[in-house]
Amino acid sequence: MTIKISIDCMGGDHGPSVTVPAAISFANREPEAELILVGLEEQIQAELKKHKALSHPRLSVLHASEVVTMDDSIETALRRKKNSSMRIAIKLVKDEQVRACVSAGNTGALMAVSRYLLKTIPGVDRPAICTILPNQKDEPTYMLDLGANVDCEPQHLHQFALMGSALVATMEGKAKPTVGLLNVGEEDIKGNEVVKQTAELLRADHEKGILNFYGNVEGNDIFEGTTDIVVCDGFVGNVTLKASEGLGRWVKSVLTTEFKSSILNMLGALIANGAIKAISRRLNPSRYNGACLLGLRGLVFKSHGGADTYSYEWAIKRAFDAAKYDVLSRVTTTIAELMPQTDQASLPPTADAVLIESSK
Amino acid sequence: MTIKISIDCMGGDHGPSVTVPAAISFANREPEAELILVGLEEQIQAELKKHKALSHPRLSVLHASEVVTMDDSIETALRRKKNSSMRIAIKLVKDEQVRACVSAGNTGALMAVSRYLLKTIPGVDRPAICTILPNQKDEPTYMLDLGANVDCEPQHLHQFALMGSALVATMEGKAKPTVGLLNVGEEDIKGNEVVKQTAELLRADHEKGILNFYGNVEGNDIFEGTTDIVVCDGFVGNVTLKASEGLGRWVKSVLTTEFKSSILNMLGALIANGAIKAISRRLNPSRYNGACLLGLRGLVFKSHGGADTYSYEWAIKRAFDAAKYDVLSRVTTTIAELMPQTDQASLPPTADAVLIESSK
Repeated sequence: MTIKISIDCMGGDHGPSVTVPAAISFANREPEAELILVGLEEQIQAELKKHKALSHPRLSVLHASEVVTMDDSIETALRRKKNSSMRIAIKLVKDEQVRACVSAGNTGALMAVSRYLLKTIPGVDRPAICTILPNQKDEPTYMLDLGANVDCEPQHLHQFALMGSALVATMEGKAKPTVGLLNVGEEDIKGNEVVKQTAELLRADHEKGILNFYGNVEGNDIFEGTTDIVVCDGFVGNVTLKASEGLGRWVKSVLTTEFKSSILNMLGALIANGAIKAISRRLNPSRYNGACLLGLRGLVFKSHGGADTYSYEWAIKRAFDAAKYDVLSRVTTTIAELMPQTDQASLPPTADAVLIESSK
Repeated sequence: MTIKISIDCMGGDHGPSVTVPAAISFANREPEAELILVGLEEQIQAELKKHKALSHPRLSVLHASEVVTMDDSIETALRRKKNSSMRIAIKLVKDEQVRACVSAGNTGALMAVSRYLLKTIPGVDRPAICTILPNQKDEPTYMLDLGANVDCEPQHLHQFALMGSALVATMEGKAKPTVGLLNVGEEDIKGNEVVKQTAELLRADHEKGILNFYGNVEGNDIFEGTTDIVVCDGFVGNVTLKASEGLGRWVKSVLTTEFKSSILNMLGALIANGAIKAISRRLNPSRYNGACLLGLRGLVFKSHGGADTYSYEWAIKRAFDAAKYDVLSRVTTTIAELMPQTDQASLPPTADAVLIESSK
């Protein structure tokens, strides 16, 4: 049985020149995948032709006349560009034509359009962005939220923990993945009021056996792999993720410069080519591309805007795996079973407006 | 003329076995430095003897009968251990016996005792912790706050920007260092309310020529060196700093493992020894040890608790340079000239209690 995924081919810094070859490569690698390429038909066809994949049996093209640019406001994406490739790709998820969607388009627009079309899962106030980061144990650390919610209340962080836990249970096959709450210290007395109250909610869940709450974790724990999941608000998550990317690029530039700084160093690097290759593979952030918009009634994956073909293919793979392992129903069931029924009632009426404002 | 610095020899994970040899090494390197070693006399003397420095002309010992441990609460450090090496070392700053103090003791206690003894500079509501981080331009990025204030109002971030600017102007000899406000995006509409209001205060200062405000910066900008100073609240700063340290350690472990993974890789590393050494020097976090507790009426520097001798010596150097360049009067003058007089009046009466609570 094939699993259908829609690809917003126009999103990202590079558009079809990256998204189309990545889709072809993934389709060739994964016989169960069927991909619908959404965007300006002419451009997509040209890329397919270039890569001799015009008649690929599991690739089809769906024309969309508009493109949401990286600079477009949420307002523009939501109200003016109703025929955008982003919107049509997400619409296919809503209409159950595909099992998941991938886009490298601008995050605020992607979240807003996804939320508008798909709505949130019952019990979830706000969707969150969840990505994986590498750690010393050579296992993935799942971290959320990465920027959808710059201001969070304890109940939001609580929901992120439950959703993250369901995601990891499904994707990694771990019955009781550990959840850490990102804080400035491990002790219970540390942190601001939101974090302290969240810890209480998570401890209560832990005592009921609902969640495997490890306790507070610190920044370094993300890369040490102390817990499977790290929960934080979108402001902290976004800054931490981008700081890590920045540090990674700096390290890469130091390595490259130094190994090219003399004939002797170049020779050494040539001889230790195996090590250099392994290092560059292990430290390559492309392997971690593909963040999940978690909490929606449909699977939407966000690729890094600047992703290259290799990196974009990872995002497609992540969406494919999530669809295959049926992450959506697992998350929905978890939330339905575990969230107190009162939470919906306590939702302030403006929550939607706040999210859309904050994720611009 | 010599510059006197007090060293809390008992602070940190290793105590005198690290702090004393670091002090000896620094005194030998810097003929203008005179260091007062504060702590358990017997232990310090033993270390001095071990390193044949018992009669060093610019090292003296001041006995302190108590030690603030890494686990001691602020309450204990502040009210019960009045003869701690930490407190006596700071008291020397207050009594103008020394120009600065260095401690690797626990941050919450160090901040609380420093604040209690030294008080804040007029116009500063809350001191902040400021450290430097490396960047792609091979210049330092100054970042504050790193954890003293987990909840900040716009006026606090505003004060951090002014203090950071005065610090960098003095330490780096830059007339108008650039200030970036850490956020989830560059656009003005991004971020939470605190950040948006802070940006308005900083823009107003920029227009008056008081501050060189660059605008919003993102996590990656820290390591790209986009601005000389990055301002954020202590929660975000602490998490980002620790995440960067964690990522750095992971990178180091990947490099070490891979270059030792085969004879060929080891041979290559041997031949490219120059590159390996340069990489390890440039990526060594020890070079960035020594954070300044900014906003107090005296200079106090915090070393990483786990610092080794080399790293601790950097913290002493940083304190020495700050004293030499008279950072304190520069920061005090800047704040006195620039802070609106109303700010003091608007300080809520419980601000002190909040800080002490939040920096535990």
